[in-house]
Amino acid sequence: MTHATVAALADLVGGRLVGDGERRIIGLGDLRTAGPDRIGFVRNAHYQALAATTRAGAVLANVELTTAASQIVVADVDLAYAKVAQLFHPGPRAVEHVVHPTAVVDPAAELEAPVAIGPHAVVGRSRIGAGTVVMAGVAIGDDVTIGRDCVFFPNVVVYGSVRIGARVIVHANAVLGSDGFGYAREGHTWVKVPQLGSVVLEDDVEIGASTAVDRGTLGPTRIGARTKIDNLCHVAHNCTIGADTAMAAGCMIAGSSSIGDRCVVAGQVGISGHLKIDDDVKLGGGSVVLKDVAGPGEYMGHPLLEKRQFLRLLRKWREMVERPETQAGD
Amino acid sequence: MTHATVAALADLVGGRLVGDGERRIIGLGDLRTAGPDRIGFVRNAHYQALAATTRAGAVLANVELTTAASQIVVADVDLAYAKVAQLFHPGPRAVEHVVHPTAVVDPAAELEAPVAIGPHAVVGRSRIGAGTVVMAGVAIGDDVTIGRDCVFFPNVVVYGSVRIGARVIVHANAVLGSDGFGYAREGHTWVKVPQLGSVVLEDDVEIGASTAVDRGTLGPTRIGARTKIDNLCHVAHNCTIGADTAMAAGCMIAGSSSIGDRCVVAGQVGISGHLKIDDDVKLGGGSVVLKDVAGPGEYMGHPLLEKRQFLRLLRKWREMVERPETQAGD
Amino acid sequence: MTHATVAALADLVGGRLVGDGERRIIGLGDLRTAGPDRIGFVRNAHYQALAATTRAGAVLANVELTTAASQIVVADVDLAYAKVAQLFHPGPRAVEHVVHPTAVVDPAAELEAPVAIGPHAVVGRSRIGAGTVVMAGVAIGDDVTIGRDCVFFPNVVVYGSVRIGARVIVHANAVLGSDGFGYAREGHTWVKVPQLGSVVLEDDVEIGASTAVDRGTLGPTRIGARTKIDNLCHVAHNCTIGADTAMAAGCMIAGSSSIGDRCVVAGQVGISGHLKIDDDVKLGGGSVVLKDVAGPGEYMGHPLLEKRQFLRLLRKWREMVERPETQAGD
Repeated sequence: MTHATVAALADLVGGRLVGDGERRIIGLGDLRTAGPDRIGFVRNAHYQALAATTRAGAVLANVELTTAASQIVVADVDLAYAKVAQLFHPGPRAVEHVVHPTAVVDPAAELEAPVAIGPHAVVGRSRIGAGTVVMAGVAIGDDVTIGRDCVFFPNVVVYGSVRIGARVIVHANAVLGSDGFGYAREGHTWVKVPQLGSVVLEDDVEIGASTAVDRGTLGPTRIGARTKIDNLCHVAHNCTIGADTAMAAGCMIAGSSSIGDRCVVAGQVGISGHLKIDDDVKLGGGSVVLKDVAGPGEYMGHPLLEKRQFLRLLRKWREMVERPETQAGD
Repeated sequence: MTHATVAALADLVGGRLVGDGERRIIGLGDLRTAGPDRIGFVRNAHYQALAATTRAGAVLANVELTTAASQIVVADVDLAYAKVAQLFHPGPRAVEHVVHPTAVVDPAAELEAPVAIGPHAVVGRSRIGAGTVVMAGVAIGDDVTIGRDCVFFPNVVVYGSVRIGARVIVHANAVLGSDGFGYAREGHTWVKVPQLGSVVLEDDVEIGASTAVDRGTLGPTRIGARTKIDNLCHVAHNCTIGADTAMAAGCMIAGSSSIGDRCVVAGQVGISGHLKIDDDVKLGGGSVVLKDVAGPGEYMGHPLLEKRQFLRLLRKWREMVERPETQAGD
Repeated sequence: MTHATVAALADLVGGRLVGDGERRIIGLGDLRTAGPDRIGFVRNAHYQALAATTRAGAVLANVELTTAASQIVVADVDLAYAKVAQLFHPGPRAVEHVVHPTAVVDPAAELEAPVAIGPHAVVGRSRIGAGTVVMAGVAIGDDVTIGRDCVFFPNVVVYGSVRIGARVIVHANAVLGSDGFGYAREGHTWVKVPQLGSVVLEDDVEIGASTAVDRGTLGPTRIGARTKIDNLCHVAHNCTIGADTAMAAGCMIAGSSSIGDRCVVAGQVGISGHLKIDDDVKLGGGSVVLKDVAGPGEYMGHPLLEKRQFLRLLRKWREMVERPETQAGD
């Protein structure tokens, strides 16, 4: 079982220790119920009173509180909480080399021990780095490269020739490397254009459940380092998504578009094909993007406008229809 | 084979029997082609003429018809049809205890016989109630509790610690309990917040194909009793959906939002995070919800308005652009 | 290894041969790097200069170029490229009869040799035509009919009684034949209407990753020949989609609607239930369709308007809000 002194936790989160640093903490706890081997947290002033009566051994907060608990004072409680929670609840990671007897692994696959391959998983002539966990029912094609310490939740499918960095997390039923939606026309008929490219996921990417990332037509579809994509998103062929970007659920990115670094794309955004979204762009929920977005800023809506303007347009629309009918003249 | 007298069927649906109640019915049929051991139905006046010439043994209708068939007269034909159809076409249910030899079931799993576990299914240290059917390729993690008479269609994934009531139906490739999309920021980098909560599906919930319900950050994401969710929906971490609600395909519900009881959410609705939708709210297709919705009623659109108002706004928008260009002055 | 003379390739694509037709080509190549046994292509004038210096053996272009390579001149380079690429990169096809030892195939299944059944696939009492490839983890129910030369990528689920034509491609994690979202009301409670119909996919259909096509209530949900559907789409019960139609990712088609032949539906379109979209209709990305669409043409938006009009409406909306606040009087 993981345990740490309060002083070590203060170090981990870069916080200021107040009180006894030697207390031994074995996990997170709720300030109302936790005992002396637990650390709780106070996210906002509303909960500060709890600190006075808690029996928890330590508390994370952004101000010094009146409490018998040891304190770790930090600027950003959410960030500090995330780090402490990761310590006590690390994600899955292979520490012993285990290939479940029901897994079907190509004899030419290169598994860098320790790797954990779950029941009924299928691994082609591919390479998997140490520490990686491949859960039940995952299907990995040929010529795939997977880095260290990745996690593939059950029933993920990775088509052939996909490149995946280190510490990538792929949630259940996501699909990486499916054919891009590319056809030529012959009269009224669609003629399939073979999709010969690949998908590249750089280090520390996380992909949500049932999200699909299509392979490129000739080159790669690329998702940059540390970018996080939520559930049920679609990234079409030949797209490039930068680093440190976050995309919420239900976004559909059409072919050959690019999204910059450090963008935040809210849920259900649609982006047409062959567009360029600059770095540091925030797109509000449900936006429909039909043109390039140049320059950092917050944008929203359909038509896509600066957020402030679109909120104003929403108000104007409401006014158009909320006036009494006789005055509106309709 | 299931069979029932017309009188028993009338009882089942709470209908009024007209004619011979002793006829033996073995299934549904089309009034045009069915023989005397079948029951047909007449949904609207348009089809009443069929009743005069049918050879079917019985007919469900909301008015008394001129027919040689036995009749069951009910107020709501759709409801009565559903009940009769359920009798003759019940869903899958385990009646013998069968664990397929290729299934991988943790020795510590508790299966309350009879349970049916299909080929290549994987079941962790979890509990499954009697009557439940787990089809091919389903992966169920550890510490999951599943009630009686549930059905999991192929390749569903249930992460650890999910709680599922009785008579829950989960369609193929749905995912329950995937990590919520939660990150803290450290400079430009996203730091994963471990998702330590759970998912609770109460009794009689139905979840559509490829729908994803994320686990809560600390507490549960909860879906109330008898609520039905269609395909390709996303329910984010910490959401609460009430009882008897229906949500059509492609809806994306962001984190920590709540939807009340008896709501009807049409397709492709997006709901921002941390919102409260009251009981008895109907949201029209494609609505984008950015604020709380207080009070029962029908709402629609972006901006979200009362349905009547949004339809008026749609008309005004059409007028704005359908006028000849010269009069519009643009 | 596939190889062909330039003359044979010119024949394949119906192009005009310029130069040596006897050169032997073994694959595609980039004009910058390819050697004499490769064929490159020039999609637009921008790249014509490459032709002068290439070492590739042949080049596809829509004009005659100054080059030492053999040339194939065609009207539509994209179409010709697709055909040549298909020749050198054909999709998966069973040429030997192989049932993986871990697959679970019902003894009553009829497999028309050669068929390839992958690891952990499950096939019920169903019929599968020659040449068809069923990859890892695919689950096919009972009474399913599948034609020749189909491909099912990993973890696809096909419910019972689905009918699939020849040369159909189904990408990973797609679901065919899940229950339609049909309920009757009893007070506030939803009573499930058993979904007794089927799904019919005609010849040469392609279905994207994680797309779901629900079975009909009594009859089929039907997708016409040569129609292509992208990732993460939903086709509800009782829908009919015509032939030669293409539908991009994230579209949600509600129950009993029909879409004609030769339609192009862009991404994230929503179509309400019981609507009729005529043949040869194009719907722009993110459109919300609440009424029938009569007559061929391009439509877009919410409200759905002729594309030209909706783009005008988008401009008007922008104007409404981009005027200085003082003049706008708000």
